[in-house]
Amino acid sequence: MNQPAIARSWVSHANGHSDFPLQNLPLGIFSRGSEAKRCGVAIGDAILDLEAVLAMGFFEGQAKAAVLATQGGTLNAFFALGRAARVALRERLLELLGEQSEHQAMLEGALYPASTCQLHVPAQIGDYTDFYVGIEHARNIGKLFRPDNPLLPNYKYVPIGYHGRASTIRPSGTDVRRPKGQTLPAGQSEPSFGPCARLDYELELGIWIGQGNDIGQAIPIGDAAEHIAGLCLLNDWSARDIQAWEYQPLGPFLSKSFVTTISPWVVTAEALAPLRCAQPPRPQGDPQPLSYLLDKRDQAAGAFDIELEVLLLTERMREEGGAPHRLALSNTRSMYWTVAQLVAHHSVNGCQLQPGDLFGSGTLSGATPGSYGSLLEITEGGKHPVELPNGEVRKFLEDGDEIILRARGVCDGEVSIGFGECRGRVIAAN
Amino acid sequence: MNQPAIARSWVSHANGHSDFPLQNLPLGIFSRGSEAKRCGVAIGDAILDLEAVLAMGFFEGQAKAAVLATQGGTLNAFFALGRAARVALRERLLELLGEQSEHQAMLEGALYPASTCQLHVPAQIGDYTDFYVGIEHARNIGKLFRPDNPLLPNYKYVPIGYHGRASTIRPSGTDVRRPKGQTLPAGQSEPSFGPCARLDYELELGIWIGQGNDIGQAIPIGDAAEHIAGLCLLNDWSARDIQAWEYQPLGPFLSKSFVTTISPWVVTAEALAPLRCAQPPRPQGDPQPLSYLLDKRDQAAGAFDIELEVLLLTERMREEGGAPHRLALSNTRSMYWTVAQLVAHHSVNGCQLQPGDLFGSGTLSGATPGSYGSLLEITEGGKHPVELPNGEVRKFLEDGDEIILRARGVCDGEVSIGFGECRGRVIAAN
Repeated sequence: MNQPAIARSWVSHANGHSDFPLQNLPLGIFSRGSEAKRCGVAIGDAILDLEAVLAMGFFEGQAKAAVLATQGGTLNAFFALGRAARVALRERLLELLGEQSEHQAMLEGALYPASTCQLHVPAQIGDYTDFYVGIEHARNIGKLFRPDNPLLPNYKYVPIGYHGRASTIRPSGTDVRRPKGQTLPAGQSEPSFGPCARLDYELELGIWIGQGNDIGQAIPIGDAAEHIAGLCLLNDWSARDIQAWEYQPLGPFLSKSFVTTISPWVVTAEALAPLRCAQPPRPQGDPQPLSYLLDKRDQAAGAFDIELEVLLLTERMREEGGAPHRLALSNTRSMYWTVAQLVAHHSVNGCQLQPGDLFGSGTLSGATPGSYGSLLEITEGGKHPVELPNGEVRKFLEDGDEIILRARGVCDGEVSIGFGECRGRVIAAN
Repeated sequence: MNQPAIARSWVSHANGHSDFPLQNLPLGIFSRGSEAKRCGVAIGDAILDLEAVLAMGFFEGQAKAAVLATQGGTLNAFFALGRAARVALRERLLELLGEQSEHQAMLEGALYPASTCQLHVPAQIGDYTDFYVGIEHARNIGKLFRPDNPLLPNYKYVPIGYHGRASTIRPSGTDVRRPKGQTLPAGQSEPSFGPCARLDYELELGIWIGQGNDIGQAIPIGDAAEHIAGLCLLNDWSARDIQAWEYQPLGPFLSKSFVTTISPWVVTAEALAPLRCAQPPRPQGDPQPLSYLLDKRDQAAGAFDIELEVLLLTERMREEGGAPHRLALSNTRSMYWTVAQLVAHHSVNGCQLQPGDLFGSGTLSGATPGSYGSLLEITEGGKHPVELPNGEVRKFLEDGDEIILRARGVCDGEVSIGFGECRGRVIAAN
């Protein structure tokens, strides 16, 4: 992939400030009207239909095998092929979509405006695991309960995670029905039942698993990065009042399982390569990771420098034609563990990972106000409401509120690799 | 289904003390040698191949639709059809396998000795949820940490559960590789890494979800029982030392996800109907369930009277030709919540359940020694080792130990409905 520093596409929109320049080429599953789901690649404001391009005869060898593996409307089989197939497809797409391409006229027949397409969850998610690797988030939450000792003793040794619900993962744009459940009102000893009153979002990175492992066979840390197919954004919607009452002793359950929203494009490991960075140095006194989590190459280049943003658009802002209000600007460097460490830890007990499994990173807050990835942190559990520019205030989310997550990393100094949006609007409980 | 009290089968073994009399007819997915997976029904010591019977032309109408839905080697589509299809198939099988059947000669061509068949996990499990509804177990575990106040304040209001790992659910007979992981040795402040030293089993009921619900649409308690396709046995293998170190604050994770064993036969809701009983009366002072969990019919007949048994066969017992030693005899009446209450609770926040989802009940211990469903309870966390008849002792499981779960309910006074075995043998860490 020895592309010139700023390779350009004949899809002109891709050469502007799009999330999807030629350097990105994220894969997704889309459909148009009542047509079947199929694999596409985002380029500027358009989607290239890979099945149509296949039918035109433009793919051969490993790139062709890669596209064939996307048939059926999920990327699981494609993920299972691993890196070589992704790279072959990417290289061919760079040729086909680059401004030197001789096939523009034909390919335009396989290019649709993204606004005319519907995007879907890109894989059948066998298992979804949510981690807790945003150390500033863990500290902020811990402070609400234990001001003097916010991090539990295991935090700096164990990449804390738990199993999440796969059946309610939905693509960006899906409405978020306010959940009902049991909560314990302040000062009461018996619970009430009703709509969640402390509905929150969580800013997370989503991690798509590529090749898996057999049960009983741990993935060594040195190989772990090879098992990541790509990334997305993830909003781990959370019902804080339901969570507080239900989570002891086995962890969050219905407070999280009503819906989880993801951005539908898989930003591949290859597109993200320029955004890799060293794992930030650990503060003095922090323990060395145990050896099964330690790899020099991973420490040198296993983290990501990706800017993350949370925006809120209320019903009133929408009516007033106002712009969404930024609630937070954060960065993936706040991850205490790398994605490779998550893979190594998850499988060290012999747990089988499968192509199309999804990990959430946990909320990625920064260390300072303005970078907190949930309202629970921003408002300190509702004690200090956020004031919005139009005079509205929020402790937690209200019906009609829309949360928009965005992410971008700067690659080669000028081109930025974006993730597309992860959006969801809260609708009233039924 | 107005069968005579003790209907008999022409498969003579089914008329003895088999787990699988004519009244049971559990469904499973089996294969022989390298042949494709397909649906079978257990009858005595044999398996009837439903695809072969279909090819013989013995199914029509809804029963035929039911068998067609099992094609492809999973029961998901069959589960999605719901009760009417299960009943139609059952009624036809009662005719075909009953001693009045005129088709014995032909059907024998579709009947294989079970010993020549391999059984598989019967559905593609979209999500696996493990509950904690064995109140005696919760009390026994709670006592180890809080002798004066073993049950947490939410226990009698919330059917406590958490998401489990679907990818490592395996059928009876699969070896259990001892997991490795982080543990905090007693008296230390830093964790060690190595093979689990406190490996345990948990005696649970498995619950197969039939028809599902749409996201955002709770299943009312009055309808919830209709969403249960059937039951199995489930061993929630647990690494107690890994669990103790990892589980705060988000619950058990790698301590459970290395493997979960199930008995491969789905004992249908219809076969279990004679084993239904009233929900045991709650002790005075216990709260009334909240209204979304309360249904008169469910309270009157939503529980099960099924005897549960745990046996241990050690390597030395095997060498000596000894019989397995019974560790516990328990009963499903120790469930504090009915299976319908689990369905209603799980979906009350709008969480989508799908055909082929699996629930675990949580460990079903009785109130007295001899009925405890885990070694953690039997040995009080390893303090009081179990003495086995051959002189061996156990605090926790050793390599070579095999755990066997069994279940049976007495139906019509004489015939018993069994579940088949849920077996797993511990093998050394690798």
